[in-house]
Amino acid sequence: MLSIGSVVIRVDDLERQMSFWQAALGYEPRREPDDGFVILQPPGGGGTCISLDHVPAAVQVPPRLHLDLYTEDQDAEVQRLLDLGATKVEWSKRPADADYVILADPEGNRFCVVDTAGRGDSTPPDGARQPGS
Amino acid sequence: MLSIGSVVIRVDDLERQMSFWQAALGYEPRREPDDGFVILQPPGGGGTCISLDHVPAAVQVPPRLHLDLYTEDQDAEVQRLLDLGATKVEWSKRPADADYVILADPEGNRFCVVDTAGRGDSTPPDGARQPGS
Repeated sequence: MLSIGSVVIRVDDLERQMSFWQAALGYEPRREPDDGFVILQPPGGGGTCISLDHVPAAVQVPPRLHLDLYTEDQDAEVQRLLDLGATKVEWSKRPADADYVILADPEGNRFCVVDTAGRGDSTPPDGARQPGS
Repeated sequence: MLSIGSVVIRVDDLERQMSFWQAALGYEPRREPDDGFVILQPPGGGGTCISLDHVPAAVQVPPRLHLDLYTEDQDAEVQRLLDLGATKVEWSKRPADADYVILADPEGNRFCVVDTAGRGDSTPPDGARQPGS
């Protein structure tokens, strides 16, 4: 058996990215950062983690890999993320009826906030796919 | 509330990547691919998905974002992934006692297979961090 244990994001500023991603997802460090590395996990430990690793890698735009974050309260979550230090990404090809909003974290990694309201099963819309290209 | 709904991977060959990632994780398509896009989900639908999106983006080495896949049977899983079309990535800085093996999927996206055997809680080792740089 193989599971998606963690999504590892290389960072330039570990403290800043820890602060953002902990608050964004309500995650907590599994233990104190060690040698520039930390695993942020859901409370209790189950589910996919975010690991932050202070080693060099360029931010990629458009990214080959990006996160789709699901929420049933898109407007409020987008505003909360902006307040936490995310920035909004305008993308000329985004359809007017898109169910996703493109944001970037404090270091410029793009991700989508996907509206799953009314789906009940957190099923994302088919259209939720693009972090801006 | 906000959750890691899916990790989106841009692909050059949707069929090939679907085949690999479905088999690698035991996932299934939520529905048939549409317009070059598919969501692969765990059986039953819970947990973090993998979405594949047929739009251009360069493979990044070293990657800013990568997956850490956890397993309690690393040797067997690594061999299974190699048989499915993954390739092994040699990295000169990898510690001899590292608990991770670096692989790349059929399109060259690097990921780690992390040995969580004996931890009981799928806690990864602190050393499991690098997809090769």
